Amino acid sequence: MPFLKNLWYVAANAYELDEPMVSRKICNEQILMFRTSSGEVAAMDDKCPHRFVKLSLGKRVGDNVQCGYHGLAFGRDGSCVDMPNDPEYAIPPCVKSYPAVERYGVIWLWMGDKERADPAKIPAFDFITDPDFAVSQGVSHYKANYQLFTDNLLDLSHVHYLHPHLHQGAQFAHFENKLKVEGDTIWSMLWRHRYPVTESSREMWGMDVDEVEGQGHSRWNAPSLMYVPTAFWEHGKTIDEGIQSPSAHLITPETEYTSHYFWAIGRNYRQDDEEISRRNSEGVKFVFDTQDGPMIESQQQAMGLSTDFLDHKPVILKADAAGVMARRMLKRWIKEEQREAEAASEAIAAE
Amino acid sequence: MPFLKNLWYVAANAYELDEPMVSRKICNEQILMFRTSSGEVAAMDDKCPHRFVKLSLGKRVGDNVQCGYHGLAFGRDGSCVDMPNDPEYAIPPCVKSYPAVERYGVIWLWMGDKERADPAKIPAFDFITDPDFAVSQGVSHYKANYQLFTDNLLDLSHVHYLHPHLHQGAQFAHFENKLKVEGDTIWSMLWRHRYPVTESSREMWGMDVDEVEGQGHSRWNAPSLMYVPTAFWEHGKTIDEGIQSPSAHLITPETEYTSHYFWAIGRNYRQDDEEISRRNSEGVKFVFDTQDGPMIESQQQAMGLSTDFLDHKPVILKADAAGVMARRMLKRWIKEEQREAEAASEAIAAE
Amino acid sequence: MPFLKNLWYVAANAYELDEPMVSRKICNEQILMFRTSSGEVAAMDDKCPHRFVKLSLGKRVGDNVQCGYHGLAFGRDGSCVDMPNDPEYAIPPCVKSYPAVERYGVIWLWMGDKERADPAKIPAFDFITDPDFAVSQGVSHYKANYQLFTDNLLDLSHVHYLHPHLHQGAQFAHFENKLKVEGDTIWSMLWRHRYPVTESSREMWGMDVDEVEGQGHSRWNAPSLMYVPTAFWEHGKTIDEGIQSPSAHLITPETEYTSHYFWAIGRNYRQDDEEISRRNSEGVKFVFDTQDGPMIESQQQAMGLSTDFLDHKPVILKADAAGVMARRMLKRWIKEEQREAEAASEAIAAE
Repeated sequence: MPFLKNLWYVAANAYELDEPMVSRKICNEQILMFRTSSGEVAAMDDKCPHRFVKLSLGKRVGDNVQCGYHGLAFGRDGSCVDMPNDPEYAIPPCVKSYPAVERYGVIWLWMGDKERADPAKIPAFDFITDPDFAVSQGVSHYKANYQLFTDNLLDLSHVHYLHPHLHQGAQFAHFENKLKVEGDTIWSMLWRHRYPVTESSREMWGMDVDEVEGQGHSRWNAPSLMYVPTAFWEHGKTIDEGIQSPSAHLITPETEYTSHYFWAIGRNYRQDDEEISRRNSEGVKFVFDTQDGPMIESQQQAMGLSTDFLDHKPVILKADAAGVMARRMLKRWIKEEQREAEAASEAIAAE
Repeated sequence: MPFLKNLWYVAANAYELDEPMVSRKICNEQILMFRTSSGEVAAMDDKCPHRFVKLSLGKRVGDNVQCGYHGLAFGRDGSCVDMPNDPEYAIPPCVKSYPAVERYGVIWLWMGDKERADPAKIPAFDFITDPDFAVSQGVSHYKANYQLFTDNLLDLSHVHYLHPHLHQGAQFAHFENKLKVEGDTIWSMLWRHRYPVTESSREMWGMDVDEVEGQGHSRWNAPSLMYVPTAFWEHGKTIDEGIQSPSAHLITPETEYTSHYFWAIGRNYRQDDEEISRRNSEGVKFVFDTQDGPMIESQQQAMGLSTDFLDHKPVILKADAAGVMARRMLKRWIKEEQREAEAASEAIAAE
Repeated sequence: MPFLKNLWYVAANAYELDEPMVSRKICNEQILMFRTSSGEVAAMDDKCPHRFVKLSLGKRVGDNVQCGYHGLAFGRDGSCVDMPNDPEYAIPPCVKSYPAVERYGVIWLWMGDKERADPAKIPAFDFITDPDFAVSQGVSHYKANYQLFTDNLLDLSHVHYLHPHLHQGAQFAHFENKLKVEGDTIWSMLWRHRYPVTESSREMWGMDVDEVEGQGHSRWNAPSLMYVPTAFWEHGKTIDEGIQSPSAHLITPETEYTSHYFWAIGRNYRQDDEEISRRNSEGVKFVFDTQDGPMIESQQQAMGLSTDFLDHKPVILKADAAGVMARRMLKRWIKEEQREAEAASEAIAAE
């Protein structure tokens, strides 16, 4: 299945661009990113048009990148600004550039037609840059198709088996679970009524009660952008009075079979407690690197060189409804984009 | 070349099932095995029908295996016995199971039609569980097609060159060698008359003579099951009065290009001498890991992505007769099985 | 693109044959080489015709090589000289042998029709065995097509960017550069007028001047044999009075995507200074292993499973003229050889 092109993909955590250059493969395209002196983000093919070597093997010279092989230099829009060994060359070459936006603590790249790159289409992850929240961020890499992460995060019934150390109280089947679709957005909503509070949570959350109301919704946007606004509040109070621990799980295809996983986890309590920040950060890494990651990679191994999970006729359970819907929506949009591209190329051929 | 399906394949040494679960790929199928509380062996596809992850990433719950992703549990016959997050699901899924028999110290799996799985077809390797013999067992893995091990073990002329430290006395060409076929069984029979006894053998065997009569037969059964009842006895006495050191070499295809090699080596003398047991055990491992293994893997490398050695028109020597016969028999049976399967599917289509 | 067959390829440095055997893949063929007691070089397929294992896993027995599996032995021309376990075998097998010549400190193999193997066609690299020069030799391995090394060494404009530590003085664009074709030989000629002399060079070269005349020609012969007779001399004197530091870069395809790189670097000054020898030797290794090597491998990665760089429509600069010409000549010769081979096989078919 091809990738949806006209879409914003997360390509880096913003802090990664403190380095002179970052090179990463996104949707099978090797892309060089850097931040210019004015703070804008440049993104272009990481391939010199002269010898095809990676520009990232060269160096930054001011707001340009200089190829390390023969010195050709390119500006932030990908245009060639210097060819030192052949200054009279008539048509300066350029490399493809990508619309890039820094928002919510990450770098978003538009992989399709530049004129359609509208930053308003980026789904909101306000908490990441909200001063009321303490936030940790990171990035991991897995050998699995990006949609397997959507399945994983839209169906939190797995928590009780894959993350037993996070399991508190009753089984998933006893929670209230609802599916909600708003335009291009899918919500898998989950309420945990009368959720038992453990000793350690009681202290960390500063709630002196035995049970709380809980919410563990998951929101999906294409390609595999998950927002999980976990919250707990005392019975009789409102969610705004409770503790909130929202997380973002932003999965970007590297190739059909490998994914980048950018994550952020925040909290609206004890924001200055470095120990909680460290524990949260290590907790996400531990859970994904040792539990979800190996499980999802095992799934891809069983699928082999295939990316459409539903083609394999899996058993589909009630809790899979949101994941299946996300897969169908994405598949439909990809087909539409393919048809559009075919129609456009036929129109050109007919001229 | 496809694998012969209606056949018993060795999938594990019996002692390996002391672990809660063993997962191994046999003939390209990933199979989960475990021993139930009543001692029976369960064998099933190591793939949950819900998300296709390996069941072996989960855990044993009594005589069932529980998937580590969403908790589906399967009994020893592969039927689903628990779906904790979706208890009302109408048609419980199940995974394919395999007839399994524990015999001669190893686990045998039937890879074809269940109704044809007759344990009587398992060739005899009595010595492994015979109390008169001290036996060591082990398992190795090689990057070579399973039939290359048949060639190796049916032609012991290689011992003089590949295992010079085991070489005692005259060259292979001076031994008596005969081929015998009994139904589906091939014997490459080898007699070593007036075989010189080394100082160390004299002591170990407890024979105070300079020469002995020796026998180094190899017996083949499909797919690549070798029985090598090595024996030495004093001239004028019978083989039953001599020392016996039978070995089993049970090779099972993991894939077309990789093999599991289960081995057992026994002796009818000094059964309690741990030092001899240790030396025999290390000897088999040393010889296969550093001598036969690399040589056979080199052969596979030269063949590339091909499995039928004879297609490559090798030079065939006198000592290759048994190996060539085994290859031809196996090829014929595979063809017959293919024809049968085609006829069956045509019959179904015609209905 | 296939390899040119009727050509001499460098397969080893002469000193490597001090070992009993050397096995190396050349143009996709695994070749065993050894030096006989009379000093001649034997080269043959490293594959026993009996079991296809590498003969190099066996051992030398006098001027023969004995297979390590069943003891078949082969003489220097590839003919079978011993079959110990089957002495009555009628038609002794043999392995393909290759015409081999030791010249200029390296071993040359002819990969095509034996009757056309004319040592006179080996291009000259006299300095390697010239007693007036101190010479260091070595060999490296890279994951890139051999022609990418031709591009690299025929266009020395890269030195200023890829090897800035070697850069002395003005940019490449300020040098005099000329292309010269002599039969099957291409020269990319480069003069560095008024080249500034650094403090360290002044001492090493023993020249007490601020500027010198310099020459950095590159000579190409197929497949990718480069001779780079670097020289510097005082203004007003002749090149023969100057210091000379010729180098040879002899690149041989291992496969379409990997290459052996045999190198030699010499000097006509301070020939006995071990420290300069060591520094030169390490310098070549350092530059190729950490600068040219990674850059050229990055180029191959961008090309994927493709070998014809020009097919990818790169930007071509003035300094690429010699490299493009070498590629076109080689491509033409390969096409001619292919046509010749087709005509020959048609003629045979018509008989």
